[in-house]
Amino acid sequence: MGIAERLIELVGEENVICEYEDLFAYSIDAAPGKFVVPEAVVKVHHSKEVSEILRICNDLRIPVVCRGAGTSITGAPTPVEGGIVLDFTEMNRIKEVEEKKMCVTVEPGVIYSHLNDFLSDFNLFFPPDPGSADVCTIGGMVANNASGMRAVKYGTTENYVKTLEVVLANGKIYRIGRKVVKSSAGYDLVKLFVGSEGTLGAITEVALSLKPLPKYRKTFLAYFEDLAKACRSVTEIILSGFTPAAMEFLDDVLLETIVKSGKKDLEITEAALLIEYDGFFEDSVRRESEVAVEICKKNGARIVPSESEKEREELWSIRRMAYPLLVQRCISPITGDVIVPIENFEEAVTSFKKISEEMNVLTSFLGHSGDGNIHPIILADERDEDLWRRAQLLNERIIRKAIELGGSVTAEHGVGYEKNKFLPLEWKESSEIYMKIKRIFDPNNIMNPGKMVV
Amino acid sequence: MGIAERLIELVGEENVICEYEDLFAYSIDAAPGKFVVPEAVVKVHHSKEVSEILRICNDLRIPVVCRGAGTSITGAPTPVEGGIVLDFTEMNRIKEVEEKKMCVTVEPGVIYSHLNDFLSDFNLFFPPDPGSADVCTIGGMVANNASGMRAVKYGTTENYVKTLEVVLANGKIYRIGRKVVKSSAGYDLVKLFVGSEGTLGAITEVALSLKPLPKYRKTFLAYFEDLAKACRSVTEIILSGFTPAAMEFLDDVLLETIVKSGKKDLEITEAALLIEYDGFFEDSVRRESEVAVEICKKNGARIVPSESEKEREELWSIRRMAYPLLVQRCISPITGDVIVPIENFEEAVTSFKKISEEMNVLTSFLGHSGDGNIHPIILADERDEDLWRRAQLLNERIIRKAIELGGSVTAEHGVGYEKNKFLPLEWKESSEIYMKIKRIFDPNNIMNPGKMVV
Repeated sequence: MGIAERLIELVGEENVICEYEDLFAYSIDAAPGKFVVPEAVVKVHHSKEVSEILRICNDLRIPVVCRGAGTSITGAPTPVEGGIVLDFTEMNRIKEVEEKKMCVTVEPGVIYSHLNDFLSDFNLFFPPDPGSADVCTIGGMVANNASGMRAVKYGTTENYVKTLEVVLANGKIYRIGRKVVKSSAGYDLVKLFVGSEGTLGAITEVALSLKPLPKYRKTFLAYFEDLAKACRSVTEIILSGFTPAAMEFLDDVLLETIVKSGKKDLEITEAALLIEYDGFFEDSVRRESEVAVEICKKNGARIVPSESEKEREELWSIRRMAYPLLVQRCISPITGDVIVPIENFEEAVTSFKKISEEMNVLTSFLGHSGDGNIHPIILADERDEDLWRRAQLLNERIIRKAIELGGSVTAEHGVGYEKNKFLPLEWKESSEIYMKIKRIFDPNNIMNPGKMVV
Repeated sequence: MGIAERLIELVGEENVICEYEDLFAYSIDAAPGKFVVPEAVVKVHHSKEVSEILRICNDLRIPVVCRGAGTSITGAPTPVEGGIVLDFTEMNRIKEVEEKKMCVTVEPGVIYSHLNDFLSDFNLFFPPDPGSADVCTIGGMVANNASGMRAVKYGTTENYVKTLEVVLANGKIYRIGRKVVKSSAGYDLVKLFVGSEGTLGAITEVALSLKPLPKYRKTFLAYFEDLAKACRSVTEIILSGFTPAAMEFLDDVLLETIVKSGKKDLEITEAALLIEYDGFFEDSVRRESEVAVEICKKNGARIVPSESEKEREELWSIRRMAYPLLVQRCISPITGDVIVPIENFEEAVTSFKKISEEMNVLTSFLGHSGDGNIHPIILADERDEDLWRRAQLLNERIIRKAIELGGSVTAEHGVGYEKNKFLPLEWKESSEIYMKIKRIFDPNNIMNPGKMVV
């Protein structure tokens, strides 16, 4: 009996995908490149089921890849060594809200924005706010230590994960962590599983701590004629101590792309910053925002304030349309995710721009500038061999430059398949130590093999 | 040639302690109980030296315990299986301040309050603020994921450690982590080493991120006739969203101890809270503080405000004298360190009080209540067999109750020797998995054997 038949026996035909046309969708994510089509996909619904499936796969040495919404741009949720995919999108219950613990317990398939819509009735929220908020799942966020617009003030997913239920390759179910603010009781295994990209086990339940929803927001857009001065403003605002709730960087290529799309009438300057403050006192929020406005003005910015929620939404829509519009401009976009110390933000962005010009590949640089996190969107085309070669070299040169400036290969997208080879740039012993850690939990290397740990 | 001779050859006679009288001091920390006197103590001064010593000890299978100021109350920096102790107190240089990265790089022997005195010139600080601030070392704080008064707003040590230099048992020197705000580049080894209590390797350098020093502070003391209402105020203040910079809980035993010492004229009520807000706008800080004052008043508190820095210092001196005065009241204090979800703070404290009365052992409960972190100070005497037995049982019953309420065995003091046996209460597989992790870095189990991982 093949693995597909055994899975059907276990979870029923209706939960197993075996047709090539359907399986194909699970061989890709939002990263360029083609991966291996899985032998079968199982739509899973509870941890006991996951446990049984893993036990079988472990016995048969069949690779298992966990997948949420597949919004990854690193190849993380795709099979590269064949095997099966566990689709968690239907395991999507919000199991418990503990208002007085400021805590919510969810299954991994819950969509980020659905969760926050639900939590708004309790005046609570889970802050990180990734770009893919409307589609990405909590399980995927935990697996990649994802973050986004609000990380600058509120931190990343790892700052919120309190407990995890994980299923190991041998089918063993572990519940790790405690719903407390802090602990020094042993090695921090929760933090080890956050960002482990399905290589240590399958995440089947997540308890997240929450924050009270801020009452007031103040948002503005700052246009800069001079790229360097925009970057300098980012560093100065962070060093002022008045941490914004979001500080997004948009470059000329992006502004031009939006204008050309006809979706929005914007100025096209070298750069713009979209900055938001939030809090519980209206005038404090206003004054914090004014500190940032003054810094931007001093650096030559023209300010577009928002005076109403509608105007605020208008400003945010610019950021939200950025990535979709950019990637539509080419066949095979390469989305980078480097981060540098905030001190080096200006040098990073100006160097990246220069490298992309040298390599003659149109690239937009946007990102969560408050963190020093820059997403180069390299507008490439796999069909054009020479362009593709230059685009990949550009990607590598940007990563190397970020490392040279004290940065990291990936801030919030994870490693997956695409950034595997760059990890030793940060720490040359990483592969050796990572593989040893992986083997503790997954001795037969069936959990997402070929990713992160190679 | 014995190990002491080899060490003298390596680092010089002046850096090796061999006399029993001197060695004895290294067999204890602030925990009750007697441990093993080490064979030798080496005052280490740089990582290459540490590397050479570890390599020799690893070859000879000699246990190695790293020690900072020895302020631990769990037995963590004491030998339980003999061997040698590395004393890091003279490896205490502040190596680099990177103002625009808001980052400082230090050797592990730097004392916490010295570091913050030094950083105040830069308007920066490292927030956690442990009770032993004036003596404890950064290395010890990292090894235990220590925190303290300011964790409620600013988080624990692990939130600040950016990079580590660690020396493994085989002498290999690793530099892990990046000086960036966030990263999802592989398993988080920095977080694994934070709180590992010297069981994975020796920490020889730490880069910490820093926060800008707040400009304004508002501090008050609230006396409560009713213990339960004091606890309820803690939960209500945290749920209000106006997070204090510190919220310390003091019980009647403590208030009475201070009054009896003659050091301070205080009311003796069932409980008191010392609450502080800080920030960058004077009136915001004042208004946030008023929210907390109103909650306390609603719950029947009498408020003692502070109107000047001098009055503020007066209030803080109450908290600072608490622990020393309490432990002077008995021969063998047992200091607990449990934490519960903030929702359960009232139930925890009232239950603990009840249990200590049942067991008939005088116990004071104080702690970082904003975190749900309670330190029971059990006033015991090892010489009184019956009292000692009841005191230990009380300690265990408190821990079990905290676990039952969803809490953790230790919030900020670490596991050491004293809490080893309680770890499986949180997660029964902990020992098995922890030992496997330890073996990756320390296959011969020479690094602080008998602690945390047994």
